[in-house]
Amino acid sequence: MNGAQALIRTLVDAGVDVCFMNPGTSEMHFVAALDDVPEMRGVLALFEGVATGAADGYARMADRPAATLLHLGPGLGNGLANLHNARKGHTPVVNIVGDHATYHKQYDAQLESDIETVARNVSSWIRTSGATDKVAADAAEAVAVASGPPAQIATLILPADVSWTEGAEPSPPIAAAEPTAVDADAVAAIAAVLQGDEPAALFVGGRACRADALADASRIANATGSKLLAETFPARLERGAGRAPVDRLAYLAEFAAMQLDGLQHLVLVDSKAPVSFFAYPGKASDLVPEGCTVHVLAAADGDPAAALAALAIAVDAPADAATIQAEARPALPTGPLTADGVCQALGALMPEGAIVSDEGNTSGLFATGHTAGAPAHDWLCLTGGAIGQGLPVAVGAAVACPDRQVIALESDGSALYTIQSLWTMAREGLDVVTILFNNSSYAVLNMELSRVGATPGGPKAKEMLDLTRPDMDFVSLATGLGVPATRATTGEEFVAQLQAALATSGPSFIEAIVPSII
Amino acid sequence: MNGAQALIRTLVDAGVDVCFMNPGTSEMHFVAALDDVPEMRGVLALFEGVATGAADGYARMADRPAATLLHLGPGLGNGLANLHNARKGHTPVVNIVGDHATYHKQYDAQLESDIETVARNVSSWIRTSGATDKVAADAAEAVAVASGPPAQIATLILPADVSWTEGAEPSPPIAAAEPTAVDADAVAAIAAVLQGDEPAALFVGGRACRADALADASRIANATGSKLLAETFPARLERGAGRAPVDRLAYLAEFAAMQLDGLQHLVLVDSKAPVSFFAYPGKASDLVPEGCTVHVLAAADGDPAAALAALAIAVDAPADAATIQAEARPALPTGPLTADGVCQALGALMPEGAIVSDEGNTSGLFATGHTAGAPAHDWLCLTGGAIGQGLPVAVGAAVACPDRQVIALESDGSALYTIQSLWTMAREGLDVVTILFNNSSYAVLNMELSRVGATPGGPKAKEMLDLTRPDMDFVSLATGLGVPATRATTGEEFVAQLQAALATSGPSFIEAIVPSII
Repeated sequence: MNGAQALIRTLVDAGVDVCFMNPGTSEMHFVAALDDVPEMRGVLALFEGVATGAADGYARMADRPAATLLHLGPGLGNGLANLHNARKGHTPVVNIVGDHATYHKQYDAQLESDIETVARNVSSWIRTSGATDKVAADAAEAVAVASGPPAQIATLILPADVSWTEGAEPSPPIAAAEPTAVDADAVAAIAAVLQGDEPAALFVGGRACRADALADASRIANATGSKLLAETFPARLERGAGRAPVDRLAYLAEFAAMQLDGLQHLVLVDSKAPVSFFAYPGKASDLVPEGCTVHVLAAADGDPAAALAALAIAVDAPADAATIQAEARPALPTGPLTADGVCQALGALMPEGAIVSDEGNTSGLFATGHTAGAPAHDWLCLTGGAIGQGLPVAVGAAVACPDRQVIALESDGSALYTIQSLWTMAREGLDVVTILFNNSSYAVLNMELSRVGATPGGPKAKEMLDLTRPDMDFVSLATGLGVPATRATTGEEFVAQLQAALATSGPSFIEAIVPSII
Repeated sequence: MNGAQALIRTLVDAGVDVCFMNPGTSEMHFVAALDDVPEMRGVLALFEGVATGAADGYARMADRPAATLLHLGPGLGNGLANLHNARKGHTPVVNIVGDHATYHKQYDAQLESDIETVARNVSSWIRTSGATDKVAADAAEAVAVASGPPAQIATLILPADVSWTEGAEPSPPIAAAEPTAVDADAVAAIAAVLQGDEPAALFVGGRACRADALADASRIANATGSKLLAETFPARLERGAGRAPVDRLAYLAEFAAMQLDGLQHLVLVDSKAPVSFFAYPGKASDLVPEGCTVHVLAAADGDPAAALAALAIAVDAPADAATIQAEARPALPTGPLTADGVCQALGALMPEGAIVSDEGNTSGLFATGHTAGAPAHDWLCLTGGAIGQGLPVAVGAAVACPDRQVIALESDGSALYTIQSLWTMAREGLDVVTILFNNSSYAVLNMELSRVGATPGGPKAKEMLDLTRPDMDFVSLATGLGVPATRATTGEEFVAQLQAALATSGPSFIEAIVPSII
């Protein structure tokens, strides 16, 4: 078999059987080899940021990496923003980036670039596969490294001749690394701190935001009178009725500071010590209160669920001590539609097992509250702050979980970065309902303009944050990309459209016309 | 004044008075400062690849750089593909990339990344401006470096606190570098070669594709019996009736080899020795025929027009020896629409002074022939091979030349990478007619699949190159982004729609439904 065939076979044998791709000429042998390894599913994206974001969403839900197939340095460049998000969320991704044939690189052809440099900022592991008889072993190593722990991004650069030359053999999977063992001394020390009199909080992130780990965290917090907080943007938060609820740290540093105020101990569980999202003149970047000691129960290379279980034993937390969220649904909205009303309807109608990809930004702020008591569901956040993630993550989540309802909460400003995602939803028949908050502005930036002390913005500045002139028609955009779409301006319309969309399989799109909350 | 104000004032004083931007929080002081420096025009893009591609198109037409304003590493990442194209085309661009405040970087906030690394592959010059009193001088240097010769990409990283701190002063412009002087010995040697008996060709690129330089090149070729060829994808080719015509080297290596067959001397004029775009199994990468000697008349840091003028004198080329293209218009197309028919209509109707941004790919192959005798116009090509360039370049060209008709030749596959460009055309009221060839496939990849020897593609491979299921509706897409759009399926419809679009100011969009030529 040729290098491409051995590579794909190796990926599949290692559990990587989905590849989100936007290929070009240098990847044609990889594409041709898809027919030789039927277990590999190829999913076409029309823009690379869709492919990388979909790989992120897939791995969050499948707990194993997907592959991407990208075309040379520029294709990887187009995928960087969502790889940044995956990196920050500790989500595994295996990138395959095609390159010119090894002997062709010396000629500096038009598409020649330094792919390793382009890959460096987002990738923990980078290798240019130099020979056909090595590519399968390189792929096995890429999957193992990506899988972690810590989960990370591995980028394998595949020269065209390495791909097309015969003489390759598949490589067996490499066992994933063992997580760093739970540190009994740390558990004991943290137990003593939590059982003491000084105000303390557990600060959970990453894999500590899954239901079982959260239940243990809640038991510990309740048994010791500690606070329980989650990071601002978890990659995947399991929540809803029947699960242990957790408040996320606020995006705005002013509010986050209130949540952390007075703490003398902060226990990190697969999270990092909280810092302000951006710097603001005269305001602190480090949100850990002065005098507060930071403890690490489990890091990204550890086993946060096991560490929390051990800590629960150490503090003698009763088995039934966890807070359990009761089922509670808000009333259906009526009258002129607002962002609040959209989130009410979502909370009222969301089915059990839903997966919400949340890039609602300012308009989506109400969603957390209104869905807290909805049936058990998963909430996927904007891990790295690079907008244009929500729709691709929804694509990937839907590929990973074909039997679950995916809901993408999107905003007008963010949607436009990777709007091409809708086409992939249509092609693959993915059961995704996209709810688009159209408030006609980069609302978050209008807020930030004043928060950074740059007010009052003059007319030229305001124009750079305004999305009117022309108003975008998202129903036309979605329709043009093959997704049935409707527009709602009242609560009643929105409810009817959401009910219809949830009752339909395949993608739907609802444009919710709402005033900006800023 | 603060750093941002001094920076913008310095840019304007150095002749950089347009900034294509997609800002975020860390760039808010730059945005606010737009109102303090009224000469700077801010043009909002909804995706960074639009901003960088527009800066490329602007500089090709204005012959001076525009600035971009991008948000941290992910924003720069989204702009990389079109910066790659600009780099390969030797087009100047000044990137301003906002970063976290200097003291904030240590906290590894969500959007933290190594921006210098992200910038490296595309930038000849990178600097992180470390202090408010240095940022203006840094900006002046960035403009000078970008302007060249050789023109290149300069990336200035602007920490938020450097931007917002008071105490900055503008810096005066720095004089651009002088081009390397014409080498009299090289001119004499090349003159002797061209006047000898061995088959020779002038191979022009870059600034040697402007009308005056081409006229001299044509005089030289005719006076010495040499061939005249241009690079495959010039950044800006001045052509049409009344100008000296030049054949471009074919994209397909098989055809390029025929054009170069038998040459014993190849004279490079602001071009590089021709190589195959991609490698193909068993085919040569280097297209220079065996035994052919390559001579350099002018390189990217030289003055190709002056070198050609000197060479014309050295070979005693008569003043009237240039070939002059006669005006000739094709007949208007009738019946079912084809890619050929679209290009006929373009050749028949294109106004004098038109600027064509050509990303028509396979469908656009006919355009060169049918427009050869149209009134004088400029032709802007896909310099670096990274698709998604055509629409942004049209945006930039229209901003640079508000009195000229811009025409974007686009294809369905390529258009989707940077479709957000249409919104900027609408917002700025740019006089751009976009002609979209919709053949429902990545046709060039269907061709490449067989050219790389990977045929026969199986059903899974073919699906990755197919753009149906769902068919895209580009009229809906354009309308959704605020650009009036029509669809043509016959020659008569297309002609009527193109006439209407050319008669209207502001953007228009025509979706031409055509069969694939592959």
